Amino acid sequence: MTPRKGRLAVGLIGLGRLGRVYARDLAGRIPETRLVAVADPLGTVAEEVAAEFDVPKHYSDPLAMIDDSAVEALVIVSPTHTHRELVIAAAGRGKPAFCEKPPALSLEEVAAMKQAVSSSGVFFQMGFMRRFDPGYAAAKREIDAGRIGTPLVFKSTSRDPFRPSLEYANPNSSGGMLIDMGIHDFDLARWFMGDVKAISAIGATIAYPELESVGDIDNAVASLVFASGKLGVIDLTRSGIYGYDISTEILGLEGTIRIGYLRETAITVLKKNNVSHDTVPYFMERFREAYTLQLQNFAQNVLQERAAPITIDDGLEALRLGVAATRAQQTGKTVTVAEVTGAGV
Amino acid sequence: MTPRKGRLAVGLIGLGRLGRVYARDLAGRIPETRLVAVADPLGTVAEEVAAEFDVPKHYSDPLAMIDDSAVEALVIVSPTHTHRELVIAAAGRGKPAFCEKPPALSLEEVAAMKQAVSSSGVFFQMGFMRRFDPGYAAAKREIDAGRIGTPLVFKSTSRDPFRPSLEYANPNSSGGMLIDMGIHDFDLARWFMGDVKAISAIGATIAYPELESVGDIDNAVASLVFASGKLGVIDLTRSGIYGYDISTEILGLEGTIRIGYLRETAITVLKKNNVSHDTVPYFMERFREAYTLQLQNFAQNVLQERAAPITIDDGLEALRLGVAATRAQQTGKTVTVAEVTGAGV
Amino acid sequence: MTPRKGRLAVGLIGLGRLGRVYARDLAGRIPETRLVAVADPLGTVAEEVAAEFDVPKHYSDPLAMIDDSAVEALVIVSPTHTHRELVIAAAGRGKPAFCEKPPALSLEEVAAMKQAVSSSGVFFQMGFMRRFDPGYAAAKREIDAGRIGTPLVFKSTSRDPFRPSLEYANPNSSGGMLIDMGIHDFDLARWFMGDVKAISAIGATIAYPELESVGDIDNAVASLVFASGKLGVIDLTRSGIYGYDISTEILGLEGTIRIGYLRETAITVLKKNNVSHDTVPYFMERFREAYTLQLQNFAQNVLQERAAPITIDDGLEALRLGVAATRAQQTGKTVTVAEVTGAGV
Amino acid sequence: MTPRKGRLAVGLIGLGRLGRVYARDLAGRIPETRLVAVADPLGTVAEEVAAEFDVPKHYSDPLAMIDDSAVEALVIVSPTHTHRELVIAAAGRGKPAFCEKPPALSLEEVAAMKQAVSSSGVFFQMGFMRRFDPGYAAAKREIDAGRIGTPLVFKSTSRDPFRPSLEYANPNSSGGMLIDMGIHDFDLARWFMGDVKAISAIGATIAYPELESVGDIDNAVASLVFASGKLGVIDLTRSGIYGYDISTEILGLEGTIRIGYLRETAITVLKKNNVSHDTVPYFMERFREAYTLQLQNFAQNVLQERAAPITIDDGLEALRLGVAATRAQQTGKTVTVAEVTGAGV
Repeated sequence: MTPRKGRLAVGLIGLGRLGRVYARDLAGRIPETRLVAVADPLGTVAEEVAAEFDVPKHYSDPLAMIDDSAVEALVIVSPTHTHRELVIAAAGRGKPAFCEKPPALSLEEVAAMKQAVSSSGVFFQMGFMRRFDPGYAAAKREIDAGRIGTPLVFKSTSRDPFRPSLEYANPNSSGGMLIDMGIHDFDLARWFMGDVKAISAIGATIAYPELESVGDIDNAVASLVFASGKLGVIDLTRSGIYGYDISTEILGLEGTIRIGYLRETAITVLKKNNVSHDTVPYFMERFREAYTLQLQNFAQNVLQERAAPITIDDGLEALRLGVAATRAQQTGKTVTVAEVTGAGV
Repeated sequence: MTPRKGRLAVGLIGLGRLGRVYARDLAGRIPETRLVAVADPLGTVAEEVAAEFDVPKHYSDPLAMIDDSAVEALVIVSPTHTHRELVIAAAGRGKPAFCEKPPALSLEEVAAMKQAVSSSGVFFQMGFMRRFDPGYAAAKREIDAGRIGTPLVFKSTSRDPFRPSLEYANPNSSGGMLIDMGIHDFDLARWFMGDVKAISAIGATIAYPELESVGDIDNAVASLVFASGKLGVIDLTRSGIYGYDISTEILGLEGTIRIGYLRETAITVLKKNNVSHDTVPYFMERFREAYTLQLQNFAQNVLQERAAPITIDDGLEALRLGVAATRAQQTGKTVTVAEVTGAGV
Repeated sequence: MTPRKGRLAVGLIGLGRLGRVYARDLAGRIPETRLVAVADPLGTVAEEVAAEFDVPKHYSDPLAMIDDSAVEALVIVSPTHTHRELVIAAAGRGKPAFCEKPPALSLEEVAAMKQAVSSSGVFFQMGFMRRFDPGYAAAKREIDAGRIGTPLVFKSTSRDPFRPSLEYANPNSSGGMLIDMGIHDFDLARWFMGDVKAISAIGATIAYPELESVGDIDNAVASLVFASGKLGVIDLTRSGIYGYDISTEILGLEGTIRIGYLRETAITVLKKNNVSHDTVPYFMERFREAYTLQLQNFAQNVLQERAAPITIDDGLEALRLGVAATRAQQTGKTVTVAEVTGAGV
Repeated sequence: MTPRKGRLAVGLIGLGRLGRVYARDLAGRIPETRLVAVADPLGTVAEEVAAEFDVPKHYSDPLAMIDDSAVEALVIVSPTHTHRELVIAAAGRGKPAFCEKPPALSLEEVAAMKQAVSSSGVFFQMGFMRRFDPGYAAAKREIDAGRIGTPLVFKSTSRDPFRPSLEYANPNSSGGMLIDMGIHDFDLARWFMGDVKAISAIGATIAYPELESVGDIDNAVASLVFASGKLGVIDLTRSGIYGYDISTEILGLEGTIRIGYLRETAITVLKKNNVSHDTVPYFMERFREAYTLQLQNFAQNVLQERAAPITIDDGLEALRLGVAATRAQQTGKTVTVAEVTGAGV
């Protein structure tokens, strides 16, 4: 494929909440794409979404859609446990693919995906949408331009406004809080600061005791020592009752940059002795634009034959940090990242 | 026409900067619309935009497009002096129309438009996008719900970050600053507080002396007394060099509400003795969502046969306030709104 | 008197709420002063305050205290109607004096004070404490240093958090809202922008109908045209129910400066969908430091024989603007400042 | 001593920078105190300060001043290594004492001080001024009142705006960064959350390599597990180049409270694409009021025979946490607080 004009014919796999948002983006909001097919094991959902967005084809079998010659590229937003099979299938058919984070829940699975991607030589882009958020992107530009001097300390906070369902939280499917929530912060840590050498972590089930029944925690703090000797700290909570709050700071030798905001609408209410405003409800309100920009970037990369800005290795390394943090939290010991390995990775 | 499912087949007139944004919205971002035709006197522009957004038809003559039976409804965003003819034509063909503000530059022109709209009985919606901004809309809801008690004082500030071209600023085409910029604030004043009884105003050409050559001012303050006896004040500037800044406050008996923000991206940079962030570049960054929501609302209203939330009368009355303010500023005298009349209005 | 070391022996007249704060400042917080005597018509109050702050002497007759040779300088914070007699007496005895704003309620009274001060040649300093607030002082420095370029528009807002007593509000003793509250903003307008040429104003009794019984208003807006052609606007309210809110902005050709804050303590509370903080209760919390700095400046000026930074003319001109605004509000007409005159001023 | 009226006759030991601020507070700003004597090994400094604040007596030998019968109570703000001897001497003479943090640099020294204080039964108050900062005090009240529900996570950040001298930073005299800077945060951790069970910490010398010559670090992160199972995290830096930044958050089950601010004066400057304000220069600007309130509280406690709100045990336990954190940082292992012991404590 040579760089070309025109729109990329995309097939979308997975039509849950995020999948529907992706459908709208791919169908109407991204000039570089056409949504030519959707797939979901629930065939009625696929039919419904196809109707809503004027998508010509719909499948209940994602593999069949991958085989469809009208589909030039794939966007995979199905449940994590399906990623391995789908990514390998796409690579096998030589079709460029975008895969939502996390790549998988075990290093072994990611090793297999990585093997398929690299042996096929086909384009693959890992999804970490925070890198496309205008705030995070602006911070990266400022730091790369030397605005705050050498980065010394990375701090990041992720707070969900309510408890997920016990089914969702179950570490067997979510990977546990330090992977499920933390993988975004681990990816940011690597993006802003480079490789991590060692992690220690504490965690507890103190907000929602019922999470103990599935073996998950609801609050955690992880400390990072980077390969460069710099420091980092990440704190996570599932009980940020006031709203969805994602904030990151990079402290440099000549200044500091903070990313994050806490307000949804532009109004402030002043009552007796009180000034107040609202908060950001959840991730879709905070990162709506980032999701769109990320898919647009994927399409542009494929069309213009640019390298992927986020690779399967980025997915692998962020997962490795999540696994290290989980192990550190469970054992109470510092875990070096180098000791967290899987088959071949 | 009875309420119906499906998308509204829209024809768009005027393909300048805002027109292209409308084209994208109507073509891809609003589920209730299809963009079936575009028109612009510059036929090549019409052709180009049609190609970009897959629009089946394009016209260099807007009146021909209005006649096209494939066009169910019209969105008019062409220069102000064309509004009268186009609105009257749309009304004559019985086609629902949305018209960007200001309705026209003279009360007489609006009188003619109003006559055409009301005698035809066809749907007509006036464009004042601030009412659809989530911040302004939330403020209106809060006030209507009694959150701040009885509103007492309306304050509004509009600041453009740079001088328009002298051609644009010329009052013969722009109406002058108090109409061109102020009409949004005058509409908000009426929306939040009701009818205005009298206006006084001061203005000066103190930032850009060259504006005197076309007879416009660059800074102004208008004081309003509402029919209810409540007070208002609006200040306008074309020299808000730091960024685009639109803010409004409604002070009530039990509190106050402020709408507005000054930040574009979610980063804060802290350097030696200094904390800083960026600003909002211009109206498109500030009100992008409002424009989309407004057109969506128009389509929904037509499809569901709902009444227009903003009528030709709203356009007429906001213009009347602008004319009154201009007259007050030029004469140095308080002008009662009742004395500002045109043929039949 | 030549510049000298040591502390200035101050006599304080007026021991109401602000007077007691001044007593504490003069007795213990200002290294350049000693409080050697206090006077108040209520002799028991004078005795009580003297005991609290270890003041050697106390008087029920202020004139007797002015005669006391142990008193080197006077601080006058008694009711406004007493200012004329006391200032004239201090000037007659050749004693430096500080007088709290407003100088008086009529231009004629101020004319007499001015005559006494200038013919005696004795030091006199007018009290307008906002000029000593670190925020306002920093803004003045920045503007004088050219930080925002040429100032174009002055905007100022003063809001009291509750209605004063009807006795206090009575224009016969307060001068009416535009003088009583506005005199601070008028002084700031002159300080930042220079002389005012004309004022128009609107006002209404819309928050507290009972104020009509004494003839005062509770909300007002005044528009100013400066001698330089620049513009200004001041809005005042007695119903800023949420807290004491004083804010000022100077918009310049290259930027804008805003002074003001709305928070008393450094805590922010985030609850479900809500971020809030407290507000500034009243003027003493907002301007506590400004009051102290102002008296310290007075003492330093006297000790070091420096000229007064705020003169009786500043008091006179601010009052003249207040009178002009009141007249404009009552007549509905623009009032030129030049037409507001009293005997000899 | 029974509760009494009148002022407490205080002797002040240590006249460095903070000592002079205390001298001014005790001499003039706190109604409950008189400063009757000052002591400093540099006799000329003592003489100078005595002259400046009208203090009747001055000493070069603090022990001689402790013996002076005119001195009712002592405020000790001399270098940390002198605390043990002075506190024991004060206790021996039965004189109430206030001692600035840290109590000492070793648990053994504090054990001796504790023994002297408890066996004498005399009043002793430990200095941790943050507890008297209006922001921290308001946060404590809100939390105790249940405003945010059960506290779950404690987060605290302390940032100094520049490197201390190498002499000062030397752990032999400062205790090292985790004690020197961290002791305030450790005290806050205990105040808000109760006892700590275990600490892990990372630290590095990454901002000022020259600190390695004296064996100190310049950035650190400590993770805390409280006895209740709740979590905490503290990050410290000596390279907060932008200003002095102290902020703390307590995340509760029903909300969160943040304490801290970043602005010194009330002005905001808006320039092209940029909104900025200043920062807090250093601790004296941030906590000036807290220092005064703390000494006032000490005097009131002595005069009214109230128990000390902060005891030698609070000093001991905060130091113990600092020692634990230092040990954890140096060994890379989690340290249980119970294992950090000294002779008898």
